[in-house]
Amino acid sequence: MHFTITAIDKGSNARNGLLETSRGTLKTPVFMPVGTAGSVKAVHQRELADDIKAQIILGNTYHLYLRPGINVIEKAGGLHNFINWEKPVLTDSGGYQVFSLTANRKLKEDGAHFQSHIDGSKHLFTPENIVDIQRKIGADIVMAFDECTPYPRDYKDARKSMELTHRWLARGIRQFDNSVPLYGHEQNFFPIVQGSVYKDLRRESAEVIASFNMNGNAIGGLSVGEPAGVMYEMIEEISPVLPENKPRYLMGVGMPDNILEAVARGIDMFDCVIPTRNGRNGMLFTREGIINIKNKKWQYDFSPVDENGTTFADQQYSKAYLRHLFVSGEILGAQIASIHNLGFYMRLLEQAREKISEGNFGHWKNDMVKKISTRL
Amino acid sequence: MHFTITAIDKGSNARNGLLETSRGTLKTPVFMPVGTAGSVKAVHQRELADDIKAQIILGNTYHLYLRPGINVIEKAGGLHNFINWEKPVLTDSGGYQVFSLTANRKLKEDGAHFQSHIDGSKHLFTPENIVDIQRKIGADIVMAFDECTPYPRDYKDARKSMELTHRWLARGIRQFDNSVPLYGHEQNFFPIVQGSVYKDLRRESAEVIASFNMNGNAIGGLSVGEPAGVMYEMIEEISPVLPENKPRYLMGVGMPDNILEAVARGIDMFDCVIPTRNGRNGMLFTREGIINIKNKKWQYDFSPVDENGTTFADQQYSKAYLRHLFVSGEILGAQIASIHNLGFYMRLLEQAREKISEGNFGHWKNDMVKKISTRL
Repeated sequence: MHFTITAIDKGSNARNGLLETSRGTLKTPVFMPVGTAGSVKAVHQRELADDIKAQIILGNTYHLYLRPGINVIEKAGGLHNFINWEKPVLTDSGGYQVFSLTANRKLKEDGAHFQSHIDGSKHLFTPENIVDIQRKIGADIVMAFDECTPYPRDYKDARKSMELTHRWLARGIRQFDNSVPLYGHEQNFFPIVQGSVYKDLRRESAEVIASFNMNGNAIGGLSVGEPAGVMYEMIEEISPVLPENKPRYLMGVGMPDNILEAVARGIDMFDCVIPTRNGRNGMLFTREGIINIKNKKWQYDFSPVDENGTTFADQQYSKAYLRHLFVSGEILGAQIASIHNLGFYMRLLEQAREKISEGNFGHWKNDMVKKISTRL
Repeated sequence: MHFTITAIDKGSNARNGLLETSRGTLKTPVFMPVGTAGSVKAVHQRELADDIKAQIILGNTYHLYLRPGINVIEKAGGLHNFINWEKPVLTDSGGYQVFSLTANRKLKEDGAHFQSHIDGSKHLFTPENIVDIQRKIGADIVMAFDECTPYPRDYKDARKSMELTHRWLARGIRQFDNSVPLYGHEQNFFPIVQGSVYKDLRRESAEVIASFNMNGNAIGGLSVGEPAGVMYEMIEEISPVLPENKPRYLMGVGMPDNILEAVARGIDMFDCVIPTRNGRNGMLFTREGIINIKNKKWQYDFSPVDENGTTFADQQYSKAYLRHLFVSGEILGAQIASIHNLGFYMRLLEQAREKISEGNFGHWKNDMVKKISTRL
């Protein structure tokens, strides 16, 4: 994996880069659609590649480990083969899901003991086996096993949690270094900055993470309930500490305006379920603002789903039709909204890259943030 | 609308035809995917046209009348515009849904009084307004408003029901003749044979229906719970009475073997929710037999969904992956299964047409019926 910065914005810390992987080169800043259990919900893989033009997708280790199970994925020759996706895949480490979905979880020094949310079966995730699991999934980018510190958490506990994450990181990297890539493509390991909403902890964590000199670095534990302003402050604290010549990945973020603000603060990679999850609830993101397509006001609006949209779903269906599908509970509604929203995210980041190239990202960002957060 | 018979099988009553409509020519025998409320569930319109290669789809008057409502469809310029579908649409008359879905329905001479299954609102369907509604939907083929006689029903009541259907038919045709096509394409009207499982009633009804000399004729009230053998007997009774030079449409049928048996008995048109509804439950039809994809036996089967399948969904995904999607409750599972099953139905009827051309449909049919009804 090799990262080259190709442009730096004049008025902000935004930058364009090329992230070369053995499954192709990503243009950053990049958004990664979330394919939780091996499927970006309601979207066919060919739509993801050809219409949405996703460069890379994310898989959830926790979900894939439970279903279909690592055996199935291994026998399929890795997740790419299993789901029929040739471009890169990043897998999260399962930490977030263990702490948000499971019953009877116990955090110990060795790892996280938990019961499956599906059948109550007992499992143990350790920094080591989480590396092995992601190797077997075939992730192009493997994430460290961390504790995603919940919000709010007091300073003392946040420090303890961060220190555990750091000790786990050292174990994870050792396991990664002592194991080999599977399925014939390169695998990379990204560590994760924690430290809750405390600047000194975030800085300390970023320094520890930077010291491992991995091919990319991530920021976790943000967008977990804290105000957006606090999130931006934390990014401003962390970003300059992380190596400039390595991609910075802000995990689980976010709304379109959050993403643009983070790009301005030097972030290169994003993932979030919002475009698909909110899409399935009828929320559409557009350049003019946010639409609740279930609203009566769209009943007779026969204009395209999104005149500025880049996908077939934007152009081939009308707002009135999409509203009807949602009101009637038709699956096709979720399909159209998911494609639209993912297409919107892709186009937004493409435009961001254009503006960074031109050196005027800052102005455009301020203007866009206002528009895309408006409720129509 | 013009129907030309292009081939007649040597050993059966199967025939090939061309049904010319102002929205294109259909090759019969033809299967019509059901787009209940303006969407063939879980399938994009471009998939329907380009991958499944549907020649015509069906809409449900009852559902479309309630949601989105006829006003919306009219303002959209008809259903074709509203849903973005250029090929022909046939709408059923709503009779079946009124009798199966609604509360407090009352059948009177004037029509069917009922309450919506959605909000309890009160409505009246008459043979006349059902024509007007289908005109406004923009159906290329408008169906008569009938009573779909439930099974079982005793002889006396079956006769009464049939006679009501015939009186309604006369009123419907008068309304049709006294109204004009909308949206610039031809609209046609098909009457429906009823008569439950009584041969003499079926013959009598077929004679009445034939006497109106419409552009096509339908058989209703079959596949409603009676044994398949009884259904085939009824078709054998009716089919020779209906004009040979007009398409014969068997409504709501059915499983793939039912369809081939009906083709052998002179039927030209079919519709059914089975490929999509059963698909959403994990039932896949293949040339080798019926698969329950949720079954554990497919867990490690990485062969394509259907090696003989004609759609991208058959070739781009494996059985093991599709099983995983179903077990995990992923929407994509329903999408893949629906495309596969519809593609299978289309290909089955394409093959039937090939065999009819060659004059050896009968042998092939007997062989296929056995295979495609086997549970794998």
